[in-house]
Amino acid sequence: MNELAPRRQTIQRLLQPASIAIVGASEDLSKVNGRPLKHLLDKGYAGRILPVNPKYRDIEGLPCYARVADLPDGVDMAIIAVPASEVIAHVEALGQCGVAAAVIFSSGFGEMGAEGRAMEEALQRAGERAGVRLLGPNCLGFINAFSNVYATFSQYADGDTGAGPIAFVTQSGAFGTAIAALVRQRGLGLGYFINTGNEADLNFSELMLAVIEDPRIRVAAGYLEGVSDGEGLVRLARRCRELGKPLVLTKVGRLGSGARAAASHTGALAVEDTIFDSVIRQYGVLRARNEEQMLDMLEALAQPRVCAGTGLGIATQSGGAGVMMADRAEEVGLAVPSLGAATQQRLAQVMPAFGSANNPVDVTGQFVARPELLLESVVALLDDPEVDIGIVWLQLMTAHVDKLVTIFAEIQARTTKPFFVCWVAAPAHALQRLRELGIVVFGAGERAVEAAAALARYHTHRVGNAESQAPIQLPGLEARWKQGMVPCLEATEWLQAAGIPMAPVHLARDAGEAVSAWKGFTGAVALKIESPDISHKTEVGGVILKLNDETAVRDAMAQLLRNASHHAPDARVSGALVQPMVDGHIELVMGVHRDPVFGAMVMVGFGGVLVEVLKDVAFRKAPFGVDEGLSMLAELRLAALLDGVRGQSAVDRRAIAQMLANVSQLAATVPRLAELDLNPVRVGADGPIAVDCVLVLSEETA
Amino acid sequence: MNELAPRRQTIQRLLQPASIAIVGASEDLSKVNGRPLKHLLDKGYAGRILPVNPKYRDIEGLPCYARVADLPDGVDMAIIAVPASEVIAHVEALGQCGVAAAVIFSSGFGEMGAEGRAMEEALQRAGERAGVRLLGPNCLGFINAFSNVYATFSQYADGDTGAGPIAFVTQSGAFGTAIAALVRQRGLGLGYFINTGNEADLNFSELMLAVIEDPRIRVAAGYLEGVSDGEGLVRLARRCRELGKPLVLTKVGRLGSGARAAASHTGALAVEDTIFDSVIRQYGVLRARNEEQMLDMLEALAQPRVCAGTGLGIATQSGGAGVMMADRAEEVGLAVPSLGAATQQRLAQVMPAFGSANNPVDVTGQFVARPELLLESVVALLDDPEVDIGIVWLQLMTAHVDKLVTIFAEIQARTTKPFFVCWVAAPAHALQRLRELGIVVFGAGERAVEAAAALARYHTHRVGNAESQAPIQLPGLEARWKQGMVPCLEATEWLQAAGIPMAPVHLARDAGEAVSAWKGFTGAVALKIESPDISHKTEVGGVILKLNDETAVRDAMAQLLRNASHHAPDARVSGALVQPMVDGHIELVMGVHRDPVFGAMVMVGFGGVLVEVLKDVAFRKAPFGVDEGLSMLAELRLAALLDGVRGQSAVDRRAIAQMLANVSQLAATVPRLAELDLNPVRVGADGPIAVDCVLVLSEETA
Repeated sequence: MNELAPRRQTIQRLLQPASIAIVGASEDLSKVNGRPLKHLLDKGYAGRILPVNPKYRDIEGLPCYARVADLPDGVDMAIIAVPASEVIAHVEALGQCGVAAAVIFSSGFGEMGAEGRAMEEALQRAGERAGVRLLGPNCLGFINAFSNVYATFSQYADGDTGAGPIAFVTQSGAFGTAIAALVRQRGLGLGYFINTGNEADLNFSELMLAVIEDPRIRVAAGYLEGVSDGEGLVRLARRCRELGKPLVLTKVGRLGSGARAAASHTGALAVEDTIFDSVIRQYGVLRARNEEQMLDMLEALAQPRVCAGTGLGIATQSGGAGVMMADRAEEVGLAVPSLGAATQQRLAQVMPAFGSANNPVDVTGQFVARPELLLESVVALLDDPEVDIGIVWLQLMTAHVDKLVTIFAEIQARTTKPFFVCWVAAPAHALQRLRELGIVVFGAGERAVEAAAALARYHTHRVGNAESQAPIQLPGLEARWKQGMVPCLEATEWLQAAGIPMAPVHLARDAGEAVSAWKGFTGAVALKIESPDISHKTEVGGVILKLNDETAVRDAMAQLLRNASHHAPDARVSGALVQPMVDGHIELVMGVHRDPVFGAMVMVGFGGVLVEVLKDVAFRKAPFGVDEGLSMLAELRLAALLDGVRGQSAVDRRAIAQMLANVSQLAATVPRLAELDLNPVRVGADGPIAVDCVLVLSEETA
Repeated sequence: MNELAPRRQTIQRLLQPASIAIVGASEDLSKVNGRPLKHLLDKGYAGRILPVNPKYRDIEGLPCYARVADLPDGVDMAIIAVPASEVIAHVEALGQCGVAAAVIFSSGFGEMGAEGRAMEEALQRAGERAGVRLLGPNCLGFINAFSNVYATFSQYADGDTGAGPIAFVTQSGAFGTAIAALVRQRGLGLGYFINTGNEADLNFSELMLAVIEDPRIRVAAGYLEGVSDGEGLVRLARRCRELGKPLVLTKVGRLGSGARAAASHTGALAVEDTIFDSVIRQYGVLRARNEEQMLDMLEALAQPRVCAGTGLGIATQSGGAGVMMADRAEEVGLAVPSLGAATQQRLAQVMPAFGSANNPVDVTGQFVARPELLLESVVALLDDPEVDIGIVWLQLMTAHVDKLVTIFAEIQARTTKPFFVCWVAAPAHALQRLRELGIVVFGAGERAVEAAAALARYHTHRVGNAESQAPIQLPGLEARWKQGMVPCLEATEWLQAAGIPMAPVHLARDAGEAVSAWKGFTGAVALKIESPDISHKTEVGGVILKLNDETAVRDAMAQLLRNASHHAPDARVSGALVQPMVDGHIELVMGVHRDPVFGAMVMVGFGGVLVEVLKDVAFRKAPFGVDEGLSMLAELRLAALLDGVRGQSAVDRRAIAQMLANVSQLAATVPRLAELDLNPVRVGADGPIAVDCVLVLSEETA
C-alpha cells in the first residue's frame, strides 16, 4: 500500500483496529452499550477488547478498566457509549492515552437544537485538540466484516453479516440498517457497514475514500441526507473511477419540501438536489432513487462482467413482458437492437414457428414443455455483435428448476457478456441456486432493465472534464475592480479575451459618438444605457433596439438619457453602449454561480418566458470540456430546437458546447468570479453570441 | 339478479357451469389436455365432468365420450384441447348439442400469420353460426375459484388458488400467470382468473363486465396488450364506477417501439398509448405501469377503507425515510399536510425531544427500545383532520414482532381511516400476521406512497363527463355538404352556432367588398384567400395580416389573388375572407379526430413551434363537461403560462374549458364530423377565440 497521510493512517487504525476500548461498556449485552461486546465476542474478533466502566471488574471474562486513564498505551480505537454530557471528557482522556480514534454512539448533539449544536462544536474542537478522530456522534458505528470488527449497535449486526464485495456508508442509522438488511436478503455481502451520524469530524466521503482502497471491495454504496463537503465527494468519485469501482448513491430530499425536512432532521446542509444530481452524474456516480433501485444496481454492479455498450438483448416466454422491457429500455437509455441475419438464422432453427426470432426474442409458452429452447436461443442472442447485455424473462416453472439452473449455468459459461435472469414468482430454491452460481437474478422485468442500464451507464461513461489548460489571464480584472458588478464594456472585453463570443460594444458618451459608433458597425444597432448603478437596464427604459439611421440613433440617445434621469435620478451614467443587432433564431441563457457545496457551477438553458415555466436548464461543475458541454445541451428537454424545427436551420451544437467549456474554464481559474450571467445568448448561423452580460466579482478569493 | 340478456346468460353458463365437457381430454393429467381434469378433480368441482376422446372408455373413473355428438343435452360449456385444424368441427358439433360456450386452448390461429388469421375468422363465424360463445383460441382458459371451476392449464392452478376479492382478466397467458402467482405470494386472493387469448369472440371488457357483477368481487384487475373495443372498455369502466369497484389496468406498449412489438406478437390492435391513457384516466380507471405497481395497487384497493382526501400522514423511525416518502407523495399528487396544534400537542406528549412532532412524524431510534411510542403517535396523526391516510415506516425489529403486531392491531381498531404499514426487511411471520389481521403491508416506502396515491385517486375521482345535453342542431351542415372540407365561412358559422367562439369572417369577392368589410369591423383586419381547393392558405401566400387602411386592404386583395393564381392556378377562388385581427398573448390549438378504437377525441395544446418539440397536448373522449376541460388544461406542462408569467395577465381557464366542452359536444352529436382543427386559438382578456378552422365531414355516419 502506498504511504498514507497521518489522517488516512488514523482512519485505518479506526477501521482495522488491533485493540478496541469500549467506554461505558455494559454487562447487559442486549443494551446499546453491551451490544458491541456481544458481537465482537460472538463473531470472533481477533484483537484485544478493553471494556471501560467503573461499575465492573470484568465483563464476560474480560478485565474491565475503571477509567479511560487506566487503559494501556497504544489502543487503536474506542467506542464511546455514555450520555452526551460525558463524551467530551472521555475524548480528552482518550487523547491522553494515545487512542487514535473514537466511535461515538451518544445522541443529544447537533440533532437537538442550538444547545446540542454548541456541544457538538465543542466535541469537534476537543477531538482536534486531543488528536482523536471521531466517527459520529449520534451514529450506530461501523462493521468491518473482513476482520470481524463490530463497533456498532445496529440491528443489522444481529443476523448473518458475512463479508462481501460491497462497502456501504450511510448518514442515516435507521434507513442504513434497512438497506444493509436488504443487502443480506439478496445474498449480497457487505465488507463494510459504516454509519456516519452527525459527522462532527470524519464525513461520508473521507470514510468511503478509505474503504474503497480495500482490494476486496468492488462496489461502493452510499446513503446521503445532505452534503457539505462537495470537493470531498468529487474527490471520492474521481478515485472510484481510477480504481474502476462503481459508486452508487441514494440521496433523499429530491424536492424542495423533502429537502427542508432533511435539513431540519439532522442539521445536514441540504444541497440543492438539481446541483447534486448534475455533479455526481458528471463524475460518473450512479444515483439510485430509492433503496430498491440501489439494491438492484448493486446486484448488477457486484458481478464482474463488463457491459461494453448499450445494446440490450431480451428473451422471454411472454411477448408482453418483452414489450414492457423494450419500452423501459428505451426510456432508460438502452437500445434493443434488431438482430443480425446470422443470429436470426440461428434462432429460426431452434424457435417454434409462432415465436419471435427478433429482439425481444419470444420463445413462447412452448418453453414450459421444452425449456431447452432457451439455451440455444439465448446464446445466439448474446453472440449477436449488437448485443452487449442480455435479460432472460421467465415465470414460475416450479417443475423445471433443476433443468433451468443447468441451462443458465451453461449460458453463463458460453458467453463473456453479462446477462441477468428475471424470474417472476420464482421458487425460492431456484433463486438461491442461481445466486450461488454467481448469476444475477431479478424478480421484475422493468427492474432488471433499469439495473442493466446502470451497468451500461457505468461502463460507457466517459468523464468529460476539461484537460488541464493554462489558467485564463485577466490581469486588468483583478487589479482594477475590487468587488461588485464590472461595467459591461470592460466585462465584455474580458469575456472576449477568455474566448467567450460576445457581441461587440462601443461606449458613446454623447449622440455624436453614438452616431460614429453606428457608422463603424454594419447594419442596425442597439443603444443601452451604461451605468455602474443600473443592472436591469430594460426596467428603466435603458435599451432601445434596431436603430439604423442617424436621426434614430440621435433620438434614441436623448431618450435613454431622459429615461435614466427619470427612473434612476441618482445613477452615475457614463453614456450608452452601442452594439450591433445580433441575428439568431435561438435564444439561450448561460451563467455561472458559486454553489456553497460544489463551487463554480455553469448553467445553460433556453431563454425567454420558457425558462421560467419549464425550468429547462442543465448544470455542470467547472471546469469541463466540450463533450460535457454537448452533454448539457442534450439534457435540455427542448434540445430538438437546436436541430431546427419548422424549416429553421440547425445550429452548431459544438460551438455552443465550446462556449460553455470556455465559460467553465473562466469560472475555474478566476476564483473571484462570483457570478456571471450571459443573457441572452443568441444562436444563429454564426454560432452563439452573448448580447448582454452581468459579471460580479467577490472581494476575496473564494 | 336483474334479467340477463342472452349473451350475458351464456357468459354466466361459461363461468359458472353445472357441467363441463373436455374435448380432447387426455388420461395423462400432466399434459395440457389432462390438466383441467386433474384440477377439477383435485380441487373439488361439484358439477359434472364429461371427457370426450375416442381413445378412452373412461378417464379417472369418469365415462369418456367418443364424440361431441354423443354428449347428453344441456352441457353448459366445453374445453377444447385439440389441434387447431380440428377446432372448428368440434365447435359446430358442440352447437348441435346445445353447448353454450367453449374455452379453446389450441394455438395456431391469429398469432400465426395470414393463414392462421383466416382460420381464426372462420372459427369466429362458425361459433356465431353454431351459437357457441368462444373464449380464446390460444388461451390458458379460466378459473372461477369460488366454484372450483378450473378450465385452464395455467401453471397458476398448480399451487393454492384460494378465492379472494380480486377478479383478474388477462390478454397474455404467460404474463398473466406471473401476475396471478404474485397475487398469491402477497396473500391476496383471485376470485376469477381469465385469460382471453386471441379474443376471436369474447373479449377482455365483456368478460370483466360479467365477473365484476359478482358481489364477492371488490376489485377488478386487467392486463392488456391491445384494445380494439374502445366502447366496451368505457362501458366496463362506467359499470365499475357504478358498482364502486376499482378497475386497475396494466397495458404494455407505452412507447412506439413497444407498441409495434405488441401489435406483431398477438395481432392485437395497438391503440395509441396516449389516447388509451387519457381515456381510462377520464373514466376513473387506475393504470399500473407494471406488475409490481399493479400488485401494490391491489393491496391498497382490496382493503375496504375509504380515503376521503389526499392528505398523507407519515410516521417513521428514520427521518430520511420520511423525507423520501414526502417527496414521492408530492410527485404523485398527495399532500403531506402540517399537523394541527392539537395534534402536535398530543405528539409532543409521547415523542422523545429529538424526534419530529410534525408530518412526517419521526419517532426516532428510541422506538427500537420503546415500540409503544408508535401507538399514540400514529393514532394522534391519523386523528388529525387534514390526514386522510397514514403510512408507518419501520425496519427489521425482529425482536419486537409480537409487540408491534399488537400495536398495529390497536391502531387499526382506533381509527376508521386507511393506514398502511411499510416494514422494510420485515421478518416473514410479521408480514403474515399483519395480513391475517387485514392490515396492508408494503416493503418499500415509495411503493407504499404510490399505493396510497392510487387509493386516494380512486376515492376522490369525479367523473367529469358532460351531463346529457340536447344534441347540437346543425341542419345546414348535413344537407349541403356531402363530404370533405367545409368552406371556412360556413364552418365558422356552424361552429359559432355550436357555442364555439370564432373570430368573425366576411367573404369579400372583390377589393370593394373587402374594404366595406374592413369598415364594418373595428381596427385592423386580415385577408385570407377562400377556396374549397386550398386548405393550407399560408403555403400559397394566401394570408395577409394587420391591414388597417383602404389602400392596404385593396393592395392585399390584389396580392392574394395574384399569389393564388401563381401557386394554385387550378383552384376555384371564391374571394377572400376578411377577419378582424384577434388579440391574445396565449396561442392554443384545439382539435377533434376520430380514433379507430375510442371514437371522437378532443385535443388541446399550446400552439406554435413548441407543440412540435414538447408534444404538450391533452386528450379526452367526447363528450365531456367543463371540469374535464379544466383537467385537460391542468395536464399541460406549460399550464403555468395560462396564469400569466413575466407580468402577463392570467387568462380565464374556465372559458377555455367551456370551449373544449362545447367542441366535445359537437363531436359527440355530429357523427359525420371527421376532423376539426382550430388553429390558432388566441386567448387574451376576451377569452379564447379560434382564428382559423379546418372542418372535414365524412360521407357516412361514423
